[in-house]
Amino acid sequence: MSGARIKVVLDGRFAMHRGGHLDSPTLAYETWGELNSAKDNAVLIFSGLSPSAHAASSADDSSSGWWEEMIGSGLPIDTDKFYVICVNSLGSCFGSTGPASINPATGEVYRLDFPVLTLEDVAEAAYGVVEHLGVECLHTVVGCSMGGMSGLAYCVRHPNAVKRFISISSAARGEPFAIAVRSLQREMIRSDPKWLGGHYSADDPPIVGQRLARKLGMITYRSPEEWRGRFGRERIGGETPVGDPFTIEFSVESYLENHALKFTGQFDPNCYLYLSRASDLFDLAEHGGSLESGFKRTKLERVLVMGVTTDILFPLHQQRELAGGFHNVCANTDFVELSCIRGHDSFLVDMDAFRPVICDFFESC
Amino acid sequence: MSGARIKVVLDGRFAMHRGGHLDSPTLAYETWGELNSAKDNAVLIFSGLSPSAHAASSADDSSSGWWEEMIGSGLPIDTDKFYVICVNSLGSCFGSTGPASINPATGEVYRLDFPVLTLEDVAEAAYGVVEHLGVECLHTVVGCSMGGMSGLAYCVRHPNAVKRFISISSAARGEPFAIAVRSLQREMIRSDPKWLGGHYSADDPPIVGQRLARKLGMITYRSPEEWRGRFGRERIGGETPVGDPFTIEFSVESYLENHALKFTGQFDPNCYLYLSRASDLFDLAEHGGSLESGFKRTKLERVLVMGVTTDILFPLHQQRELAGGFHNVCANTDFVELSCIRGHDSFLVDMDAFRPVICDFFESC
Repeated sequence: MSGARIKVVLDGRFAMHRGGHLDSPTLAYETWGELNSAKDNAVLIFSGLSPSAHAASSADDSSSGWWEEMIGSGLPIDTDKFYVICVNSLGSCFGSTGPASINPATGEVYRLDFPVLTLEDVAEAAYGVVEHLGVECLHTVVGCSMGGMSGLAYCVRHPNAVKRFISISSAARGEPFAIAVRSLQREMIRSDPKWLGGHYSADDPPIVGQRLARKLGMITYRSPEEWRGRFGRERIGGETPVGDPFTIEFSVESYLENHALKFTGQFDPNCYLYLSRASDLFDLAEHGGSLESGFKRTKLERVLVMGVTTDILFPLHQQRELAGGFHNVCANTDFVELSCIRGHDSFLVDMDAFRPVICDFFESC
Repeated sequence: MSGARIKVVLDGRFAMHRGGHLDSPTLAYETWGELNSAKDNAVLIFSGLSPSAHAASSADDSSSGWWEEMIGSGLPIDTDKFYVICVNSLGSCFGSTGPASINPATGEVYRLDFPVLTLEDVAEAAYGVVEHLGVECLHTVVGCSMGGMSGLAYCVRHPNAVKRFISISSAARGEPFAIAVRSLQREMIRSDPKWLGGHYSADDPPIVGQRLARKLGMITYRSPEEWRGRFGRERIGGETPVGDPFTIEFSVESYLENHALKFTGQFDPNCYLYLSRASDLFDLAEHGGSLESGFKRTKLERVLVMGVTTDILFPLHQQRELAGGFHNVCANTDFVELSCIRGHDSFLVDMDAFRPVICDFFESC
């Protein structure tokens, strides 16, 4: 039952965590591998803020997915053994209902009429998809970056519906540095006159604000160490331009520009704002009054927490906090600290470091 | 000869390091204390990007200066012993000639007709002021942040005119992380429609872009560690606002907003762009072809390099690079690593940590 870009409508009123509701939201998802007869081999992947449900290629969609080297036959998340599900986050713009979707109550695009989005909602929507697929209890939830917080929300709210959890470069809650960065990214988009209070035209979106926000994103997704070795003080074109001191001159500036150009055409600005804010709002401690009680609400058999030494957005002490919190409630908790140089994004680009750890996890299950 | 906001015109053609020239630029400076008869007690202070020459209060201007607790009678840079000079950087907007000044050749504001500014030019202009004051050889040059690089340029270009050097939270050259941050700050200002290619009106400057740039500045001037303890996940007003997910909600967002509002009214946008770019362009290695040869061009009797463990903009390895480079050419080099929590800005706010070290330096001279 492999399928690309399948959609499911969660029939009825979908109550949002902080108030408001959606009428019968649509969720886009993809699956790889087959659900076994015991229905105990399902693995749910929660992505970071920007990816779609297309985590890997499949027979229906041969284009590379965002975690192509991790999911597939013979790969660490082995589709010969596991039934792998990835859901486009509620609030995103790749098939799932979000601020860029039509509000059935008005026939107009939601825009800022979309209710406040939280990662609890993202988790709950994914839970709806998992139920729809006939899976009562997941073998493992895997969450990367923001997806790790969505995964936490899933484990806390549905403790009997998941046995194992892998948290990758994520956190139990946002800290002020990350909140400041995301708040500024949102302000960049909202300050673009073309944002028009969320009522931008599809033909003329606030790409300047999006470009700025993406560049700040890249600054926090990678690491100073990587860039020192990769770019140093290298110039593009070799020579310093004369006369205009503000053109792109250094290679690192050109790198940021290229990444930003790629992103701005792809992601809906309002969806970005909602998902970014949802990341700020998440706090495991809201589930029971403290982090400790949040962890206590999970009933996991096994946990793997992975983090990267050079991550400035979800820094290592937050990985330790997660691992420590889980260890108190699940003795079978492992913490793996990777000394990758490429910062927060390492899980997307430094596959040689991540693959063996995730491979070991699933092989030992 | 204490004097606030004195100005001097450097008569004649002032050749700029990367080409072009200024006709008789004006430099604003302040001094504290008295030049002794041997003229060997002068200390020159180079500020960071944004401050004026008003480093401390004086009889002529009783308002607090940006380094009020460091400079004065009985303070670490003791004006009972030293003749202290601080020059508003060439290219700035607090009395010295810069992009916001009138171009005498046209009678119009320079704006982007100002030639490419470098920290070598900032150093050279300060040298002109020091010469004008009758000082042939400085007792000490002190440079903070960008001012440390200006100070380096001074020491390299005028090795016989300075005996000692204190570098505070600075670097031998910009690295790609800092270049990326500054480049993005400049892009924020340039992307503001009110920037108008540098031709903004004085009544309606690009304050939105300035506000964004200042907030990114603050994110890199302080430290995640400080904010974790200071703000955590504290909300303003206590309650989460309902309905608008994009208003300021967390205390850290309010803090950034307040800092940004204070700054935007004060600093000329084009001047900011020029000084920011000058920071990117500086590379000690351009003086002789390598960092090593750059250090070799200095002839210092004594060097003190200070850095802060939590500084993400001028990180500690850059302080070590400076200290190591100086140590090879000046045996009397000290390196002091301070474990202040307030990041790059510590030299402005964590005076209890900085005062004793600087006090020791001057007392032992």
